[in-house]
Amino acid sequence: MVSFESDYINGAHPEILRRLAETNGEALTGYGTDRYCESAKEKIRAAIGLDVDVEFLTGGTQTNAVVISTMLRDHEAVVAAKTGHISAHEGGAIEYTGHKVLELPQENGKVMPTVLEDYLETYYADENHEHMPAPGMLYISHPTEYGTLYTKAELEQLSEICHRYNMPLFMDGARLGYALASRNTDLTLTDIARLCDVFYIGGTKVGALCGEAVVFTKDNKPPHFLTSIKRRGALIAKGRLLGVQFDTLFTDGLYFDISRHAIDMAEKLKEIFMAHDIDFFIDSYTNQQFVVLENGQLKALKEKVAFSFWEKYDDTHTVVRFATSWSTTDSDLQYLDSALS
Amino acid sequence: MVSFESDYINGAHPEILRRLAETNGEALTGYGTDRYCESAKEKIRAAIGLDVDVEFLTGGTQTNAVVISTMLRDHEAVVAAKTGHISAHEGGAIEYTGHKVLELPQENGKVMPTVLEDYLETYYADENHEHMPAPGMLYISHPTEYGTLYTKAELEQLSEICHRYNMPLFMDGARLGYALASRNTDLTLTDIARLCDVFYIGGTKVGALCGEAVVFTKDNKPPHFLTSIKRRGALIAKGRLLGVQFDTLFTDGLYFDISRHAIDMAEKLKEIFMAHDIDFFIDSYTNQQFVVLENGQLKALKEKVAFSFWEKYDDTHTVVRFATSWSTTDSDLQYLDSALS
Amino acid sequence: MVSFESDYINGAHPEILRRLAETNGEALTGYGTDRYCESAKEKIRAAIGLDVDVEFLTGGTQTNAVVISTMLRDHEAVVAAKTGHISAHEGGAIEYTGHKVLELPQENGKVMPTVLEDYLETYYADENHEHMPAPGMLYISHPTEYGTLYTKAELEQLSEICHRYNMPLFMDGARLGYALASRNTDLTLTDIARLCDVFYIGGTKVGALCGEAVVFTKDNKPPHFLTSIKRRGALIAKGRLLGVQFDTLFTDGLYFDISRHAIDMAEKLKEIFMAHDIDFFIDSYTNQQFVVLENGQLKALKEKVAFSFWEKYDDTHTVVRFATSWSTTDSDLQYLDSALS
Amino acid sequence: MVSFESDYINGAHPEILRRLAETNGEALTGYGTDRYCESAKEKIRAAIGLDVDVEFLTGGTQTNAVVISTMLRDHEAVVAAKTGHISAHEGGAIEYTGHKVLELPQENGKVMPTVLEDYLETYYADENHEHMPAPGMLYISHPTEYGTLYTKAELEQLSEICHRYNMPLFMDGARLGYALASRNTDLTLTDIARLCDVFYIGGTKVGALCGEAVVFTKDNKPPHFLTSIKRRGALIAKGRLLGVQFDTLFTDGLYFDISRHAIDMAEKLKEIFMAHDIDFFIDSYTNQQFVVLENGQLKALKEKVAFSFWEKYDDTHTVVRFATSWSTTDSDLQYLDSALS
Repeated sequence: MVSFESDYINGAHPEILRRLAETNGEALTGYGTDRYCESAKEKIRAAIGLDVDVEFLTGGTQTNAVVISTMLRDHEAVVAAKTGHISAHEGGAIEYTGHKVLELPQENGKVMPTVLEDYLETYYADENHEHMPAPGMLYISHPTEYGTLYTKAELEQLSEICHRYNMPLFMDGARLGYALASRNTDLTLTDIARLCDVFYIGGTKVGALCGEAVVFTKDNKPPHFLTSIKRRGALIAKGRLLGVQFDTLFTDGLYFDISRHAIDMAEKLKEIFMAHDIDFFIDSYTNQQFVVLENGQLKALKEKVAFSFWEKYDDTHTVVRFATSWSTTDSDLQYLDSALS
Repeated sequence: MVSFESDYINGAHPEILRRLAETNGEALTGYGTDRYCESAKEKIRAAIGLDVDVEFLTGGTQTNAVVISTMLRDHEAVVAAKTGHISAHEGGAIEYTGHKVLELPQENGKVMPTVLEDYLETYYADENHEHMPAPGMLYISHPTEYGTLYTKAELEQLSEICHRYNMPLFMDGARLGYALASRNTDLTLTDIARLCDVFYIGGTKVGALCGEAVVFTKDNKPPHFLTSIKRRGALIAKGRLLGVQFDTLFTDGLYFDISRHAIDMAEKLKEIFMAHDIDFFIDSYTNQQFVVLENGQLKALKEKVAFSFWEKYDDTHTVVRFATSWSTTDSDLQYLDSALS
Repeated sequence: MVSFESDYINGAHPEILRRLAETNGEALTGYGTDRYCESAKEKIRAAIGLDVDVEFLTGGTQTNAVVISTMLRDHEAVVAAKTGHISAHEGGAIEYTGHKVLELPQENGKVMPTVLEDYLETYYADENHEHMPAPGMLYISHPTEYGTLYTKAELEQLSEICHRYNMPLFMDGARLGYALASRNTDLTLTDIARLCDVFYIGGTKVGALCGEAVVFTKDNKPPHFLTSIKRRGALIAKGRLLGVQFDTLFTDGLYFDISRHAIDMAEKLKEIFMAHDIDFFIDSYTNQQFVVLENGQLKALKEKVAFSFWEKYDDTHTVVRFATSWSTTDSDLQYLDSALS
Repeated sequence: MVSFESDYINGAHPEILRRLAETNGEALTGYGTDRYCESAKEKIRAAIGLDVDVEFLTGGTQTNAVVISTMLRDHEAVVAAKTGHISAHEGGAIEYTGHKVLELPQENGKVMPTVLEDYLETYYADENHEHMPAPGMLYISHPTEYGTLYTKAELEQLSEICHRYNMPLFMDGARLGYALASRNTDLTLTDIARLCDVFYIGGTKVGALCGEAVVFTKDNKPPHFLTSIKRRGALIAKGRLLGVQFDTLFTDGLYFDISRHAIDMAEKLKEIFMAHDIDFFIDSYTNQQFVVLENGQLKALKEKVAFSFWEKYDDTHTVVRFATSWSTTDSDLQYLDSALS
């Protein structure tokens, strides 16, 4: 069945598989000390254009938990939108590390600067604030869980507020490629590295089998990070699996090509929905599109193409998600177009 | 350089890469719900010959931490040999989950039944034992960290003691294939499943890129295990990566073929060491061989082949480890033979 | 200065000090195994009229953390009002134990049954709910943080919903005495024990130096609870300190006398506020009264009597709290009356 | 029955109860912000003679867990003797905070400097040491669990090694008074404060109802320590309970008087044992005396006086502990003398 269910329905971009096979016979040292990890880090630094630290982890929830729990101090909590991935959809992985997620109201999936600032002012104005966990980091996702994007102005404001309050700014970039390739963004990879204290370049949802590249931008990698990763069960023996994949993704701009392809497909997808008078739930310029389907229409369409349930809209309508990726084809889109007719 | 450094120096067995490529374009559901995970579980059940539950995780330390922390009750600790992997080499991953590792003296890397029984008797005889964490599980590795093996009689005794004291018996099988393929074992996979409450079939060190198959043998999989895995950051989106690998390993006995090959190579390795009058540190019948090198000899050999430092033997000698795997060849062995001459 | 700052501004009720002195010279066993702990448990069981398990802990946050973390299963979280003490004012103590607090909207500080039911229905209707921590317990405080009370009908509904969804119902009774002594409640101690699975009878804020009595009502005390308490650093050597205090509080109804006295004082306090045309922020029938003061009035009053800042009301008004306790006297009230004139 | 079971069989020294009663009616702020806490801190600073930070906690296990877990960095573990209280008798409280206890062999309950140094050298010599938790603090108890004492020379050596390896030195002083009052010590309170980075002055076992005074000696109190205490459930509302007790203990040298009395009684106890030809298990100069009783003798004595089982000596003998405290009297000793005849 043609599927728009997610951006991780298929395996890896073929070039990644080719390189894994090509390097398979080389004897390499373990735990991320191999030459492909080194090379991948070098290429990522070059793409960013700043002298940053890069480390590889396996998946998104793992990365969020490792980064947040190693960067927060004992008495601190992480601030996030109520719809942030760490708030809602990671099984309580942050709390498992002993830290609270302080949930803020969101606007189109985003933490707005004024909301953050009000929250921080209220917190510090409270005489009893030392009885509450201190806001010790801001977590944002870009694109957000609703496919939306922060503007450069918003990110600059968030960054300024965070630094004024001595909180690192952490960007979950599980789908970062799609943000960078969007036709409606003014934020570059270098801007992000400059404004955030730590972020990650998602691999799993942008063409890899698995893997996320964490970027520490301010000479702020937690000390003895390897031990911290190890004790969280997040260090894999064959580190080459991550090194080769990211080395491939950052060779000849593959990461950006994959992302652009998915955006091109998403823009065509939007045109198809518009042509069929289907309402958008939210205005997204990335690879995830959220539309409102009448429940009968949903049921009929479900028999022909795969997509994801998102949330109930009202008694007769449902919000669903369609995602594109490196593997989405024009024929997939044509098939959807026909199915909607 | 010819390398005997570990059994994870190379990538995956070529058949695994072939199958990953072959299935790459199929749209599959995420998080381990795909058909390859199902098929792999079915084949593992068939290989064991018992109706067990199987779940896939990414690496060994992660698996130890997930299994131990979901099976222990709040007031319990896990008992292990002082040289057990969880005691010494996992960065405190078990303690990270909040539970103590109660370390017992070892014999050739093994927890001997009498040692365990004495420990438990002493614990329960102490009037104040409720002020100490209760022994709630026994962890053993098979092969051990020294390449040694439990006999069937020993495993039966450990199992009987554990069940008498209401403690699940957990076997770390990161290198289980090499135990099963050893020429000096009387324990079958079915025996292990019968005698242990939970164990895992290691993939990472037996030909996979990553992955361990956890087997719950007594209808004792922790409830809502998926959520527990998720909150430990151990659930990967493209579960197919694990499913396809284990499906391949358990098709036409590949897992056992890989293991046998490594054992054959290890036996030839032993012959070479014997021919060169090199002393063994411990008597191992699996793919890891520990020998004692005079420090000058070590230095000279190090220039020609790669192997691992293990521990200081005395002021002039050192214990080193040589490991074989699916990728070890006869020409590697010949090269070593020459290098030792 | 006359103080209404909290119900823990003074030491213990004099009868408690008298009994501590009287029993001081007796040689008693430690860690809660002494005869006063036993006697106190027996008297609490008699006051409740049901065969329950009772255990003593030192303070409220500690009790919440111990009870919640020993009763939740690994994959579960605790549900609470956003204004619940565990959500907002315990420094992230629940998250420190690895579990999330799922925050619900509140009404006068209370979790309303329909809100809870909607939440649970939505959770279980979500196909991906296993990616979120499961609601595994309901936490309510009675009186709430705003001094309000659940009605018997509300508690019955919450209890029914909880049991339908297999969630224990936990009542934080840090100020339980004031709920029971309120002139506007239809809930008895026996009702509470019947409808809740676990609750505690607060000592610290009802006349003791420290101490909370946890009551497990359904033969559901976590196994090996002493070890669980110990490993949370919550077991005190001289358990007599808690035993003697609760034995005294439950001798001749002292706990209820103390509570009634504070309620009588609170009712008079309300009359004084009404006489001075001061607005109530919320309608409370317990020992905490929340009123809205104009900021100039607040500043003037602050020079004469002590009370607590609660929250900003608007730019010119502030919500403040006045609390009564065993030590509040008629002359304190007269002084306040004068100070307001 | 005359009891030597422990140093916490009785309540508080009468002067403490007197002061609690005397200050009971004063309205004081909560959570350790009251004037008695301040005064107690000042007096402790004066007794030490150095400008240190002092904080109060409720009990020993709690104090160990709070101090260790707030001072260790993420990747670190605490080093202790295998017989150290945190290793063996605290229900896994340190591991509950996520950190391993690295257990060293002991000599008379002590960590010997050469043992520590060898351990650290071996750890750092291991190429894979980053796969193990790093030794991040040394824990010692003084007196030890066997009543023995470190000499000044030993403590100086341990301190030097710790600082060379960048590890804070933490002394568990649950019974510190008895160490200071011993007739066989060359360590003063000031020496201890100078050589240790953090230690505590035990109250519970030296005449208080509860309470331990933690002393940070190197301007090294963890930032936002109040929040850290709160989230571990270790902050009590009526902080006065600790403040008044320590203020009393450090007024007119009461803490030292109590300790000296117990030592005087312990020395007389030793004479009685010697007079009856009873063997000592270990040579202790503090308030805990360990003797070896023949099992028949033990049974007979047990009917007349109370003492503690310690450990099995051989098939016919048992090690038992006798402890003295502020409440031990000459007539208690005479009674024991008769009972032994």
